Amino acid sequence: MVPYKEALEEIFKSISLEENKGEIAKYIPELEKVNPDNFGVYFSTLNEEEYGLGDWEKKFSIQSISKVLSLSLAYKILGASIWERVGVEPSGNAFNSLVQLEADLGIPRNPFINGGAMVICDLLISNLKNPKEDFLDYVRKLSNCPNIEFSESVAKSEKKIGYRNIALCNFIKSFGNMDNHPDEVLDFYFNMCSIEMNCYELTKTFTYLKDNNFKTEDGEKVLTSSQVKRINAIMQTCGFYDESGEFSFKVGLPGKSGVGGGIVAIFPERYCITVWSPRLNEKGNSYRGMNFLEAFTTKTQLSIF
Amino acid sequence: MVPYKEALEEIFKSISLEENKGEIAKYIPELEKVNPDNFGVYFSTLNEEEYGLGDWEKKFSIQSISKVLSLSLAYKILGASIWERVGVEPSGNAFNSLVQLEADLGIPRNPFINGGAMVICDLLISNLKNPKEDFLDYVRKLSNCPNIEFSESVAKSEKKIGYRNIALCNFIKSFGNMDNHPDEVLDFYFNMCSIEMNCYELTKTFTYLKDNNFKTEDGEKVLTSSQVKRINAIMQTCGFYDESGEFSFKVGLPGKSGVGGGIVAIFPERYCITVWSPRLNEKGNSYRGMNFLEAFTTKTQLSIF
Amino acid sequence: MVPYKEALEEIFKSISLEENKGEIAKYIPELEKVNPDNFGVYFSTLNEEEYGLGDWEKKFSIQSISKVLSLSLAYKILGASIWERVGVEPSGNAFNSLVQLEADLGIPRNPFINGGAMVICDLLISNLKNPKEDFLDYVRKLSNCPNIEFSESVAKSEKKIGYRNIALCNFIKSFGNMDNHPDEVLDFYFNMCSIEMNCYELTKTFTYLKDNNFKTEDGEKVLTSSQVKRINAIMQTCGFYDESGEFSFKVGLPGKSGVGGGIVAIFPERYCITVWSPRLNEKGNSYRGMNFLEAFTTKTQLSIF
Amino acid sequence: MVPYKEALEEIFKSISLEENKGEIAKYIPELEKVNPDNFGVYFSTLNEEEYGLGDWEKKFSIQSISKVLSLSLAYKILGASIWERVGVEPSGNAFNSLVQLEADLGIPRNPFINGGAMVICDLLISNLKNPKEDFLDYVRKLSNCPNIEFSESVAKSEKKIGYRNIALCNFIKSFGNMDNHPDEVLDFYFNMCSIEMNCYELTKTFTYLKDNNFKTEDGEKVLTSSQVKRINAIMQTCGFYDESGEFSFKVGLPGKSGVGGGIVAIFPERYCITVWSPRLNEKGNSYRGMNFLEAFTTKTQLSIF
Repeated sequence: MVPYKEALEEIFKSISLEENKGEIAKYIPELEKVNPDNFGVYFSTLNEEEYGLGDWEKKFSIQSISKVLSLSLAYKILGASIWERVGVEPSGNAFNSLVQLEADLGIPRNPFINGGAMVICDLLISNLKNPKEDFLDYVRKLSNCPNIEFSESVAKSEKKIGYRNIALCNFIKSFGNMDNHPDEVLDFYFNMCSIEMNCYELTKTFTYLKDNNFKTEDGEKVLTSSQVKRINAIMQTCGFYDESGEFSFKVGLPGKSGVGGGIVAIFPERYCITVWSPRLNEKGNSYRGMNFLEAFTTKTQLSIF
Repeated sequence: MVPYKEALEEIFKSISLEENKGEIAKYIPELEKVNPDNFGVYFSTLNEEEYGLGDWEKKFSIQSISKVLSLSLAYKILGASIWERVGVEPSGNAFNSLVQLEADLGIPRNPFINGGAMVICDLLISNLKNPKEDFLDYVRKLSNCPNIEFSESVAKSEKKIGYRNIALCNFIKSFGNMDNHPDEVLDFYFNMCSIEMNCYELTKTFTYLKDNNFKTEDGEKVLTSSQVKRINAIMQTCGFYDESGEFSFKVGLPGKSGVGGGIVAIFPERYCITVWSPRLNEKGNSYRGMNFLEAFTTKTQLSIF
Repeated sequence: MVPYKEALEEIFKSISLEENKGEIAKYIPELEKVNPDNFGVYFSTLNEEEYGLGDWEKKFSIQSISKVLSLSLAYKILGASIWERVGVEPSGNAFNSLVQLEADLGIPRNPFINGGAMVICDLLISNLKNPKEDFLDYVRKLSNCPNIEFSESVAKSEKKIGYRNIALCNFIKSFGNMDNHPDEVLDFYFNMCSIEMNCYELTKTFTYLKDNNFKTEDGEKVLTSSQVKRINAIMQTCGFYDESGEFSFKVGLPGKSGVGGGIVAIFPERYCITVWSPRLNEKGNSYRGMNFLEAFTTKTQLSIF
Repeated sequence: MVPYKEALEEIFKSISLEENKGEIAKYIPELEKVNPDNFGVYFSTLNEEEYGLGDWEKKFSIQSISKVLSLSLAYKILGASIWERVGVEPSGNAFNSLVQLEADLGIPRNPFINGGAMVICDLLISNLKNPKEDFLDYVRKLSNCPNIEFSESVAKSEKKIGYRNIALCNFIKSFGNMDNHPDEVLDFYFNMCSIEMNCYELTKTFTYLKDNNFKTEDGEKVLTSSQVKRINAIMQTCGFYDESGEFSFKVGLPGKSGVGGGIVAIFPERYCITVWSPRLNEKGNSYRGMNFLEAFTTKTQLSIF
């Protein structure tokens, strides 16, 4: 087995030399401002062997990666009852498709497609005193990084042109699968997605899915072992929009991507890794991120399969 | 950790005492003849710790489980080129849906939905001298069980009323994603699905996915490590029709089910397990099979996640 | 041929005696307040033979019938260019389906499904100084009835719970087929649908589709002969949601229904008839209205076919 | 009003001089053999004012036009009970779409899409002694043209490559909406569509829909007035695949097209007209046929609207 450090460095170097393909996400005007050739990696094992490469200290918009965090918080608060409001099946359609939702009478296929994440937001709004603040506090506690913030400008930018998401949210409401007003749900949703972190912070934040024994600073266990296993399972089958099968096939790890170009992947009880590179392939996942992780699990010959 | 033997015996006993729910598959007349309360398990670790429980020596129709075997054979013969003809994404629809196929212009989503398996059959017909005999020989070699056979009566029974499958096959042909005549493809397909094995034989057959170093008696390596990893990944995301996410979520292992009531599940580099119980839940997967495996990975606290 | 008067009276009497089936529209709270057993008819031939029966003087919410009027106004102002923004094909789906819109990339199938009517509203907003006032003036001019009004309470009631329509409008906007802000379009749309008329006023309003030589009081021709023919043709194929074929089949006249229980039907160059009865069949069309018109064209043996 | 003769001749001449666009149907090999620039018209009024222009005496494959004839025969034999097996709504999808059929659980939307026509064929097979012969006799009787024949070569040609139709037919069978074996239904279906007529014969054949008082030579009334009205209504809303709205909009007559390039259109109680020109527009309807009829109803200012 190739040592982690050697593998990380070799692959980082080799991918840095290759042409960087794809486009950065253009539908959120604020996201266009980022340098498309940023490239960062942060890696951390169970026993805290850790490495940062490239732009691992630069903050970026984590976007859909935050859906794992909101799901985990709702799961913690409400337990298995959340599965009455959202499914756990891969969607087989683009992340913002309304077709499937119509067929499924307003129950989104899984919590990682936009509609599913909105239903989770609706649950959190109904169960948190100050939804935005409480959610942010929770993320800070998970990561032990107190300076994590929403980006108001990204949230606003997305809200302004998010017609498809507005459609989606009102559509779910029309089926009765939403307790709060769509405007309120969307406000929380866009803020949640606007969280900014760097590769280090993201990797730290996801420790609770890497390490079954993880506790926050104040000694709290975030999720039960069984819940951790289930979140990882959903990431495995649904974490990459309609490229989830491809990711599972090539990389073989549970993970979650965001249109900001970030990907977090987890080898349960072994390591967590974050890769960030803003250019996206045609499915909306980081081009270099996918390549890096495929090369990494191939070189180290370590995957869950 | 609970020892395997103890876990297997306790769970088998406890599930045997519970009510057995669901219906046996009725759309294939021959399959209706089976005793719906048969219940067998066979378990085998990497270092050949092995246990059989209940009706593990009775043969049953493996049905869709055979799709893993045909896929593996085509992958072995043709390599990655097979992915030009069939995808690796979960389908999000029932296993025999034509809707998605129309949207995808005749490229089935994955090799485990019926259409995808037919495309694999088409590839095998074009690349084997005597498709049926050669396929059977290959399965016998994998399992080292020379007395594995097709069931002519099941194949005939299915062919006679398989209008939906005939539709599917001709539909794919109409898109140009099939080289041979649909009748020939269907003949092979129905035979392939009619293979009969018992739990022991199935577990043996799938050794090549459990053990990366597996070689057949004549010293041949069936698939490369990377190919094994990929087959397991596809089973994980697509192995249980539109209950694949649920299985991943509850059981957390790659696996494949068949409407005959069999399920094979694999913990790569650890163990392979076959459960057989003919009553199916509403998604078409073995009711007791699902329950047994969920209880087993929960009790042993061992899953890939 | 049975004389009109006799036919109208006989059918009205006979239907009044039959059980009145169906439910009034419940999704717009304000509409629930109406007496479900109101039943009115107004009939007017080309040479002004006219009859009113039952509750023909009571005002009701014309709802989707207004879509013919907004279409006609946009057609008058912009000519054939409107067909670049909306189709003329029947939809084959429920009136508020988003599925088809996704497949058609935001171009609604026809101007009578909700999405199509919203696109027409968008065009009117861009081309009228005071959209609501100008539209109302135009309707008053068509009917020569200066006291026709919007119902603010109905418009508000619908806006408040119109999540599906909000979804639809934002969805179209997301495809780029809308120039104005969805909120503005919806405001106009809900007002337009809230117009209240009685059977007499509606029949008068639709004179321009009955009589090719119709001119308003100030001597203006509303539409060209060719445009009139085309509006009638679209009513024929698309006027009754996914019951358009059924209406064409049973009644054989171009027409348009609304969920307020009104139906206007036209025999070009012969007569115009309005029937109002609030109980709707399961497709959302007036139960008695459909029955009345079927009986009327059958008894008089006059239809366009 | 422009006299018919003058209008016909002027339009025929003017269209003959314009470029002839589109492609002939290529999916049925036999149909490719036809001269793509054949152009014929036959026109006949209620009082037998008749005109033939261009290639009106050349036979061609009437294809889907035959679906009106089979529908009429089934309607005559079985009455309104046929509507339990097939709908009367426009489909909003391409003529051979399986998607809608899946949503509608095997009940085709209308008798003119392929699936609907197959259900009608199934009904005829169950109710005729010698389906093919009896159907042909009936067509001969309608037209009073005893030399009308099937084209064995066209039927064979279509059967050989008709995978989509085979799929469709087996799909319907799988839903239980077919009594006979799909092979038998397809055999009848392909033969029915292979009938060859010239413009004169087609116009004569459709007299029963033009003239409510029509009787065959032996004094038989084919359909009741109400049935005639209904067939015309279905042609109006469903006669031109997903261009039915467009045809209604531009031409304003009930009619039916076939991929052989023929179109029959009817002005009830006035005239019947057949146009034939093999080049098809992208929706599968005769390019010159559509243009001819649009010009004709515009010039004569006569349409049902």
